Amino acid sequence: MAPRALCALLGTELPVIQAPMAGVQGHALALAVSRAGGLGSLPCAMLAPEAIRSELQWLRDGTDRPFALNFFCHRPPEPDAQREQAWRAALAPYAAQAGIDLEAAPPGAGRTPFSEALCDLIEPFRPPVLSFHFGLPAPALLARVKAWGAVVLSSATTVEEALWLEAHGADAVIAQGLEAGGHRGHFLGADNDVSPQQGLFALLPQVARAVRVPVIAAGGIAGSHEVAAARALGAAGVQAGTAFLLCPEATTPALHRAALREAAAPGSAARDTALTNVFTGRPARSLVNRLLRERGPMSADVAAFPVAAAVLAPLRATAEAQGRDDFTPLWAGCRADACREIPAAELTRRLGAGWA
Amino acid sequence: MAPRALCALLGTELPVIQAPMAGVQGHALALAVSRAGGLGSLPCAMLAPEAIRSELQWLRDGTDRPFALNFFCHRPPEPDAQREQAWRAALAPYAAQAGIDLEAAPPGAGRTPFSEALCDLIEPFRPPVLSFHFGLPAPALLARVKAWGAVVLSSATTVEEALWLEAHGADAVIAQGLEAGGHRGHFLGADNDVSPQQGLFALLPQVARAVRVPVIAAGGIAGSHEVAAARALGAAGVQAGTAFLLCPEATTPALHRAALREAAAPGSAARDTALTNVFTGRPARSLVNRLLRERGPMSADVAAFPVAAAVLAPLRATAEAQGRDDFTPLWAGCRADACREIPAAELTRRLGAGWA
Repeated sequence: MAPRALCALLGTELPVIQAPMAGVQGHALALAVSRAGGLGSLPCAMLAPEAIRSELQWLRDGTDRPFALNFFCHRPPEPDAQREQAWRAALAPYAAQAGIDLEAAPPGAGRTPFSEALCDLIEPFRPPVLSFHFGLPAPALLARVKAWGAVVLSSATTVEEALWLEAHGADAVIAQGLEAGGHRGHFLGADNDVSPQQGLFALLPQVARAVRVPVIAAGGIAGSHEVAAARALGAAGVQAGTAFLLCPEATTPALHRAALREAAAPGSAARDTALTNVFTGRPARSLVNRLLRERGPMSADVAAFPVAAAVLAPLRATAEAQGRDDFTPLWAGCRADACREIPAAELTRRLGAGWA
Repeated sequence: MAPRALCALLGTELPVIQAPMAGVQGHALALAVSRAGGLGSLPCAMLAPEAIRSELQWLRDGTDRPFALNFFCHRPPEPDAQREQAWRAALAPYAAQAGIDLEAAPPGAGRTPFSEALCDLIEPFRPPVLSFHFGLPAPALLARVKAWGAVVLSSATTVEEALWLEAHGADAVIAQGLEAGGHRGHFLGADNDVSPQQGLFALLPQVARAVRVPVIAAGGIAGSHEVAAARALGAAGVQAGTAFLLCPEATTPALHRAALREAAAPGSAARDTALTNVFTGRPARSLVNRLLRERGPMSADVAAFPVAAAVLAPLRATAEAQGRDDFTPLWAGCRADACREIPAAELTRRLGAGWA
């Protein structure tokens, strides 16, 4: 699949997508990427409705070029007091140490799946691209989005998921290799089972052969060499996330930035990443910190996604206030070593050069 | 690193290595690859001394071109009756069903690490390349090998291991991505911990940047596209294993061939692979079969490597005699879908074309 096909579909100059990354970026990063010829993305899963509206206004006012909004499509879990209690019990020693009562904690800001209400909210802005994680919205909702001409993207972690997305209306498929930072996007099979998932080197050529829609490579896209490799393996474009985390336009918190700088220091292997479910209840790749090391990488005690994050929130907040990242998800892909403190536009152009 | 550098080091025409694969190939496959301009490899870890001598004679008589012998460098485990018993207990339901007494089984053919005695045996043949799995032999033994001019290769699954191999005398490092079939080659850290390991897409560029010796990409090397991608990511050459398993020169047993054909059937996802320790006691990638599905992928009950395989042997033999692969390790990488029944020379040339 030629990169031109993806540019034509997205309306961009370059087949380069900035991955939506909740908690570490807003419209500023997305705008910088879109203005540089790539596709900037705004992560909406953790934003309140009024914040989504305001961010969308910034995007609409800031550029005539295309951008993407990203939403989650998970099914919120049934309340499970026993499982939540088991997670509180697993965290009890930390709570005791910090002098915190986890029982008293109010449920934290959740991650809300895409819905009719959210669709109502964004429809007036007619966002040109919508990308989804954990599958796709229900058919009627997807039809609404498509009715205003939005291009629809979603992530596949297996060939089976790629075929499912194509059959259910995705206009392009993001092949998410195991190298990617943040949440694994799988939606078929059990939440905590990553055993069918593969690295990008094996996943990408199989997905590219299996589907007819353009395939976007994600996971480990650190620079122009990786873009060239992805192209050789059948990608029509790339999506990079971690590489943007130290850009000045990202809102990556100071603790997260410090951990990334450590990982990117020459010759350093001080900060490895691992796939873990301890931060949110679903497997996601993070730099290794205290909670991940002591209760992870994968824990059977963890509460369901996204409840686990809410239970953990008070511990996280207390530690962060003391300057410690012990309980903070430090989302990053396997190529955190390649993070550079350069403007997002420059990174977008560097990635685009991989297609030349 | 240019592919020419690796060809000059190995004395080959093409920077293409056929991975040593114990149990599924002998001199015939290695000869076919070496004659076609690549580097054929003979797996020695499961061969008795007289078999190694005879295979070596075949290689020496069959070609003037370079070839590699492969040996393991694991430390044989301390006897651990309790752990062995736990493994027998885990397998007891299968044994009962098959009418087999696992206690009565004699220890099966082991996997022997490289030794002074094996060095004595091969020295007269002066094999031009030696490749090792699970690290390197002790310094004095490695010095003996180097004294006759042998080029030394070994596998790294992390940047740390690549640096270790370079510092301890490896002339080139094989970057073994998580996609690879058969045993993971890690030798630093715990036997059953694969959490620090990465897919080839992330591992390869980091290893290529970290060491000065040529880096050989392994894991997912299915054809010329993958070779081009590996080159873009910094490889000086490639090592392919699974891709050779259906070649007529391989001795892949009928059950293993049948499973691979299933995996390679167009549109088939019937046979996935997984990393498992249930066959030998160390993590290795196999097509999914009954034992892997029911006791794996990773089991805490398994005996140490390679004792677990010996305990399992009678069950495996009985099932195989009945035409079932329930207990047979079906080693294969993530790209088993790309296996083709073509002569090894043709495959070697196809892989070599990826450098053109």
